[in-house]
Amino acid sequence: MQALLKEILEEVRPLIGRGKVADYIPALGDVPGSQLGIAVYSNEGELFCAGDAHTAFSVQSISKVFSLVQAIGHSGEDIWQRLGHEPSGQPFNSLVQLEFERGRPRNPFINAGALVICDINQSRFAAPVLSMRDFVRRLAGNPEIAVDNRVVDSEYQHRARNAAAAYLMQSFGNFHNDVETVLRNYFSYCALRMNCIDLARAFCFLANDGFCLHSGEQILSSRQTKQVNAIMATSGLYDEAGNFAYRVGLPGKSGVGGGIVAVVPGRFSVCVWSPELNAAGNSLVGMAALELLSQRIGWSVF
Amino acid sequence: MQALLKEILEEVRPLIGRGKVADYIPALGDVPGSQLGIAVYSNEGELFCAGDAHTAFSVQSISKVFSLVQAIGHSGEDIWQRLGHEPSGQPFNSLVQLEFERGRPRNPFINAGALVICDINQSRFAAPVLSMRDFVRRLAGNPEIAVDNRVVDSEYQHRARNAAAAYLMQSFGNFHNDVETVLRNYFSYCALRMNCIDLARAFCFLANDGFCLHSGEQILSSRQTKQVNAIMATSGLYDEAGNFAYRVGLPGKSGVGGGIVAVVPGRFSVCVWSPELNAAGNSLVGMAALELLSQRIGWSVF
Amino acid sequence: MQALLKEILEEVRPLIGRGKVADYIPALGDVPGSQLGIAVYSNEGELFCAGDAHTAFSVQSISKVFSLVQAIGHSGEDIWQRLGHEPSGQPFNSLVQLEFERGRPRNPFINAGALVICDINQSRFAAPVLSMRDFVRRLAGNPEIAVDNRVVDSEYQHRARNAAAAYLMQSFGNFHNDVETVLRNYFSYCALRMNCIDLARAFCFLANDGFCLHSGEQILSSRQTKQVNAIMATSGLYDEAGNFAYRVGLPGKSGVGGGIVAVVPGRFSVCVWSPELNAAGNSLVGMAALELLSQRIGWSVF
Amino acid sequence: MQALLKEILEEVRPLIGRGKVADYIPALGDVPGSQLGIAVYSNEGELFCAGDAHTAFSVQSISKVFSLVQAIGHSGEDIWQRLGHEPSGQPFNSLVQLEFERGRPRNPFINAGALVICDINQSRFAAPVLSMRDFVRRLAGNPEIAVDNRVVDSEYQHRARNAAAAYLMQSFGNFHNDVETVLRNYFSYCALRMNCIDLARAFCFLANDGFCLHSGEQILSSRQTKQVNAIMATSGLYDEAGNFAYRVGLPGKSGVGGGIVAVVPGRFSVCVWSPELNAAGNSLVGMAALELLSQRIGWSVF
Repeated sequence: MQALLKEILEEVRPLIGRGKVADYIPALGDVPGSQLGIAVYSNEGELFCAGDAHTAFSVQSISKVFSLVQAIGHSGEDIWQRLGHEPSGQPFNSLVQLEFERGRPRNPFINAGALVICDINQSRFAAPVLSMRDFVRRLAGNPEIAVDNRVVDSEYQHRARNAAAAYLMQSFGNFHNDVETVLRNYFSYCALRMNCIDLARAFCFLANDGFCLHSGEQILSSRQTKQVNAIMATSGLYDEAGNFAYRVGLPGKSGVGGGIVAVVPGRFSVCVWSPELNAAGNSLVGMAALELLSQRIGWSVF
Repeated sequence: MQALLKEILEEVRPLIGRGKVADYIPALGDVPGSQLGIAVYSNEGELFCAGDAHTAFSVQSISKVFSLVQAIGHSGEDIWQRLGHEPSGQPFNSLVQLEFERGRPRNPFINAGALVICDINQSRFAAPVLSMRDFVRRLAGNPEIAVDNRVVDSEYQHRARNAAAAYLMQSFGNFHNDVETVLRNYFSYCALRMNCIDLARAFCFLANDGFCLHSGEQILSSRQTKQVNAIMATSGLYDEAGNFAYRVGLPGKSGVGGGIVAVVPGRFSVCVWSPELNAAGNSLVGMAALELLSQRIGWSVF
Repeated sequence: MQALLKEILEEVRPLIGRGKVADYIPALGDVPGSQLGIAVYSNEGELFCAGDAHTAFSVQSISKVFSLVQAIGHSGEDIWQRLGHEPSGQPFNSLVQLEFERGRPRNPFINAGALVICDINQSRFAAPVLSMRDFVRRLAGNPEIAVDNRVVDSEYQHRARNAAAAYLMQSFGNFHNDVETVLRNYFSYCALRMNCIDLARAFCFLANDGFCLHSGEQILSSRQTKQVNAIMATSGLYDEAGNFAYRVGLPGKSGVGGGIVAVVPGRFSVCVWSPELNAAGNSLVGMAALELLSQRIGWSVF
Repeated sequence: MQALLKEILEEVRPLIGRGKVADYIPALGDVPGSQLGIAVYSNEGELFCAGDAHTAFSVQSISKVFSLVQAIGHSGEDIWQRLGHEPSGQPFNSLVQLEFERGRPRNPFINAGALVICDINQSRFAAPVLSMRDFVRRLAGNPEIAVDNRVVDSEYQHRARNAAAAYLMQSFGNFHNDVETVLRNYFSYCALRMNCIDLARAFCFLANDGFCLHSGEQILSSRQTKQVNAIMATSGLYDEAGNFAYRVGLPGKSGVGGGIVAVVPGRFSVCVWSPELNAAGNSLVGMAALELLSQRIGWSVF
């Protein structure tokens, strides 16, 4: 596996330069685009990695899975009163559907849906950001994982589009806490810094019927695990979810920091990272690496 | 398995009466809503069935898979010049997205996408309806399968919405043949009459890396098979694809005749049929039966 | 007045070359773009003209006023069961609003609305095209006015977008006659050939409380006349109606043949023609000429 | 005139009870729905009134005209860099068009457009609310006119939908000042309390080529006056502007407090007030009164 990972990184490395590092905030735009790392973690606890797998990056939207899992943990099926689990067919930050569907986001992986999840968590936790950080530290087995406050501040200053979504949902009665507070927490989740190894380990429970091997915790039931994977499979990669299913065939979640996690149910969790994004906002080289990996090992669930 | 199928049918039978038989044309509206059948076909060629598995019904949108497979067969990746493989996030017959995206349908399982696929097949086959019928007969191993011309005529008289979609695509240059001819052929595919056993057998190649056991044909390559399954998983159940993934966890395709097919990769193909539909246009009892079946046997790919 | 018209034509003539002649069909694209004419007709029957006022051109969407007036004539307020009289806020050929509003066009001057009006007229007249032609001949006092069948055939071949609109309305039950027949008649109205003088005379009744001076006919009641002018003022220039009100301040109607008619209630009817169009599909030089004219004489109704 | 106004109020009074007082905030919902007043002010300075013309009410969106006039006063044509003057074809608070058109509102009379105008005024005035209040006092010739702070507070608490619009525009770079500050000022303008007489007098300059008789000020140039009236005519009554032109035929502006002002260019300014609204958010009885008045005196500009 180790050899295969190295081989694949070399194969996709020539694609570096074809994408574009997210630059809507300086803290992201500063990241050198040529970095490339991968980590694979097996249900037996074996770890394989290659390239810049030890370099931490901003997880961004990958954190939407963590907050969803937390919300399912304390509220279960009740959360679907507030949002759906259907693909949106719209860009991740669109308000159009939100207005037509009266403030109910399509799924937890578009921004509006993740904001509702944060609003749900806000009502449950006294200190939502600390709860989240500690949860992720346990999942990854790494007590050093931290929030990058420089990124939080920068995101908050550029909060306009997300603020619009939150206020629009509030106008329909689907937002219960103070908008500015929830936005700040939402940006804190996005600003978690983790590396490929952290993320592969943190997602291992989704490949293992909800059980996290190194922490020894049952994070979700087996059925809930399948459900989270199903939502990742249909809505995890913005408006490229169909293409990811077509090319890679695995549940996955991407972030504009350039990370993509994928789950091979019953076998592996994977994280690939390369900061340059394609037009849909997903790591261009990361997609290519996962496609090759999935084909070589026959990982597609389909 | 046989016993399990019977048991499941009995469990879901009380739901009959909660849905509504499609009645936009009399030929469909006449079908008694209380019918319920299921068939499971294994990669080893074993057949299990229960209920009204021998009663033929109108396959309707399930035929969209057959026409897609034919188009991939002769044109391969080229077809994606003309349409996408992303979930649409819109009702199956919406023209809104089609206008915004300049006549390019999101995927082959919404009506507009299936019409483009029919247009592609029209350019390839001298007798597209006969080709399709014969292809389906071979897949199902049943030379009796036929098109119900009463349904075709009735659909054609109610063609307005589909005609609008086809002409809109033509206005963007994404429709090459005579609209009325292609519409008539499209309705002929939808009007194929098959029973649960026929459909379970006809879909077996999608569970078997593209190989159809009883005909001995390699219908698609292994990779193409995964791709078709991926599209079914993200777009196969109208605007309820996310919910089907969440509840059932399998690639599937439904039709307003009340049939739903599902694929358990590497193991089984399934068809359940019950004519009453839910609000999203999918068989209400069929969904429930597949959910139970998937849970009991642990079939979810996620 | 005659001198003023000449002066204004010279002032705007330098703008020729900045617009673009409609070229979606060859019969329109062939027209030399440098032509420019104007005619003003007073309620006292005086005619003033300048430039190419005697050259006939394709009236195109200006005919939508004639068919609306015919429909009001025989059906009165009943027509508003089938369409509205609100500005659409969308391009003239958009289907988006038509789908959201279940097949009811916003007003009679977008294509969908004009098609519904033609459908209404089709149900009333044995020979709708002849009725229309004779009506326009009487209004203009010119028995030579004719339909250009070369344009009709060409438009019919490029009917896809309008066919899509008509079928979409049919799918909602808001289209009663054969789509292809009504489309053909609709294109015949658009293909009327008239010159600036014909059009200024044909619109004189709208400046004169519904009374056509030269034919001696009361075409509409005084109240209906104000209503037609109101619809022209809010919806007469595609998605530039607000700008026309802002710059010119008169009820008006444009066509992609480059003609614009305007009504000075109680005083004059005007037609200006110059084939080059701006981005909104209105005559670029014609708009400028009407703006100058309106300012110089203080014609704005506001 | 006095007699006619009384007569018309009696004719429309039976319609009271068919509309619904705005109740999205208590301060508006408390207003008794049966009130009805009207005032007409001539360019010669004569005042005619009937019914509850002396009772003050919340002007709400009628204030959008005052802020537009202020903005034109200091910035002239430059404001059209930031918004349009086309009818929107959408409800007054829709974000859909705002997203599609990248944060540029269609016109100054939908909420988003009025917010941009407030943002422009915010950049110009040290104390925008005081400037506005004093401007309106001068226009109406009434130094008692004041802002109802109970309404301001209540609107601010229900600001979610307007906040969403402002943040969405900010995300596109079309909002320059602090959102919360501008929102508060916007609500202060809306919360001006004036009666029919105040409003008829305050709008007299729009009937009089920009000259305010009692203050002796030239508020706008003659040309700017026509332009403001044109925008009122095409966009002044939410998504019922076309209907208002059709039925009344005058430039007008309505507010959810139940007031409607109308301008008879060269002759009169009018204000009618009745708190019950129709489905489009305009005073139901007020519309009927203006329609009768316009027909009886032949006021339609068309």
